[in-house]
Amino acid sequence: MTRIVPGATLGIIGGGQLGRMIALAAANYGLKVHVFAPDADSPAFDVAAATTVAAYADADALTRFANSVDVVTYEFENIPRETADRLAALAPLHPSASALATTQDRLAEKTFINELGIPTAPVRSVDTAADLERALAEIGCPAVLKTRRFGYDGKGQRMLRSGDTTDPAAILAEFAGAPCILEGFVAFEREVSVVAARGADGMFAAYDPCANTHRDHILAMTQVPAPGIAPATAASAIDIARRIAEALDYVGVLAVELFLVADPAGPERVVVNEIAPRVHNSGHWTIEGALTSQFAQHVRAVCGWPLGDPSRVGGVAVEMHNLIGDEVLAWEAILAEPGAHLHLYGKGEARSGRKMGHVTRLLLPP
Amino acid sequence: MTRIVPGATLGIIGGGQLGRMIALAAANYGLKVHVFAPDADSPAFDVAAATTVAAYADADALTRFANSVDVVTYEFENIPRETADRLAALAPLHPSASALATTQDRLAEKTFINELGIPTAPVRSVDTAADLERALAEIGCPAVLKTRRFGYDGKGQRMLRSGDTTDPAAILAEFAGAPCILEGFVAFEREVSVVAARGADGMFAAYDPCANTHRDHILAMTQVPAPGIAPATAASAIDIARRIAEALDYVGVLAVELFLVADPAGPERVVVNEIAPRVHNSGHWTIEGALTSQFAQHVRAVCGWPLGDPSRVGGVAVEMHNLIGDEVLAWEAILAEPGAHLHLYGKGEARSGRKMGHVTRLLLPP
Repeated sequence: MTRIVPGATLGIIGGGQLGRMIALAAANYGLKVHVFAPDADSPAFDVAAATTVAAYADADALTRFANSVDVVTYEFENIPRETADRLAALAPLHPSASALATTQDRLAEKTFINELGIPTAPVRSVDTAADLERALAEIGCPAVLKTRRFGYDGKGQRMLRSGDTTDPAAILAEFAGAPCILEGFVAFEREVSVVAARGADGMFAAYDPCANTHRDHILAMTQVPAPGIAPATAASAIDIARRIAEALDYVGVLAVELFLVADPAGPERVVVNEIAPRVHNSGHWTIEGALTSQFAQHVRAVCGWPLGDPSRVGGVAVEMHNLIGDEVLAWEAILAEPGAHLHLYGKGEARSGRKMGHVTRLLLPP
Repeated sequence: MTRIVPGATLGIIGGGQLGRMIALAAANYGLKVHVFAPDADSPAFDVAAATTVAAYADADALTRFANSVDVVTYEFENIPRETADRLAALAPLHPSASALATTQDRLAEKTFINELGIPTAPVRSVDTAADLERALAEIGCPAVLKTRRFGYDGKGQRMLRSGDTTDPAAILAEFAGAPCILEGFVAFEREVSVVAARGADGMFAAYDPCANTHRDHILAMTQVPAPGIAPATAASAIDIARRIAEALDYVGVLAVELFLVADPAGPERVVVNEIAPRVHNSGHWTIEGALTSQFAQHVRAVCGWPLGDPSRVGGVAVEMHNLIGDEVLAWEAILAEPGAHLHLYGKGEARSGRKMGHVTRLLLPP
């Protein structure tokens, strides 16, 4: 691996708030940042030393970009495979193109996880109406039909309930021929996530598992430590993240989203929902709440530097609330609130469902 | 005062590490940053949405800059008076041009402080050899001859010791006709500073006074709380900073550098050394060590927003070491040190005496 030193340039694919916060962390380490994104209005551009506005399929622009940086990372997983391969041929890419390929395809991802002996929801591949009928018969309802690729925040999904008499062919037609999966419904009690990092040297460092509350399929709140989580469950969740990171030969920060399922016969069971091969919304609390933020940790990992300490600062409990759409209008009240840490992403219009910022509140131990 | 909202543009005069860290703090609040600096290689440019490379005397460039931003601040006090006046005529400027004028001239500054009833070293104006002879007769040796303006880190200074037989005219010739002061030597025990902020609403918030250790006239280390400082001394230092900020009708972060002088007859005396009308090197520890960093606090103040809480996080003690010149080569060891927070400024060459970065270590209470 090329030795990356301060003064080197970190390339970031994607210009949203995650790229912006990675860029801010990189600047603290004396790195220059070059952001590549298709939208000229990308929030990360405002804090980058260099910017490229181009489509992810623009081979010439990708080549120029990769040749101008020392290492490449990305802020989101919906990058075409060819884009990742092209970048990886020209510059070190972390996380790797193969880790990306596994985690950006819901079928490959679930297959990979199950092969590690880690449970997920039951899942079947669905390409045709016949596949869908067979999958429904095997898995039962309720179940969720999802595109295999390019879904986020509940997009590219349809819930199927028993009694739903819509013709399978008509349902599939909504997905316009995109390869799909049918995923069985998990009757979970709680959603938690483990944000963790693996270094180029194989070191692994996990933040404390956090509890996530969604609203309209979008993360609304993260609490850490997860209220009432049993130590054995937390340890099991972290162990799952570690096995996944190791099996992917992962370098960087990843998030594993998990369901906790009540089991009358014993402790609650942990089921993997999905893997995000990137920094994650449920890790934003680490900016103030942990000794090393997930963004600084990701920069350390992709640069081949030692990982930092993921411990919570002084044993605080933390709550992070997303500011979605109009909620951002409360910015002035949040600024006046003692101990609240306001983060805004520099996005123009506060559209409904758009993540405009977040606020982190540290609750000091009594 | 114009209402500044997220999405507005903060103009920063000066492109060094202080401007860079102000820009990073502003980005967290969703502000855009426009940095104006004469050197195309300025560290703050790498994290700014817009940049202007021009001389501080370039009236056209200043006009375009001021018209493109919503509020202007600066990262250093050596800005020509005409530059500040020109900016203030076109955009809100904080701290004000008059606060800048008072603090950038050592004679005006000391006169202002003494008129508040706050002690400084004895000082005399020196424009001619006759002035210098008279000042030496009145103040005695040792004393320091300093230019009235544009000095920093010990530059533009000459120590005069008793027994020094150099002709006063020859000494003054070294200063090439620049207006000077002769400053009496203060036999101080310790150097401390108070970093504090005053909001547009008159609110005042001070960080705990910190102890500073210099090497070769450059700050080497800051410790907070100042080891062994008496509560009454700390309160007196903060009160001095408050009186100065109020008398200047100050808006923004300022630092007051103080000498602590032992007094056998009572508690140690506090003597003001100088005022820095800006964020200050001795406040870098606040990034991790305080609930609101000095950079976030400065942004809040100049935008007319409420000040944040300056308390130390969980009562930690903090040590900040500057990484000067070659010391930056230790970056990799510092990265591997548990709990050390490394900051590098993205400067190219590690020249002797150049501030390349800093490291902050939090010492949790036992």
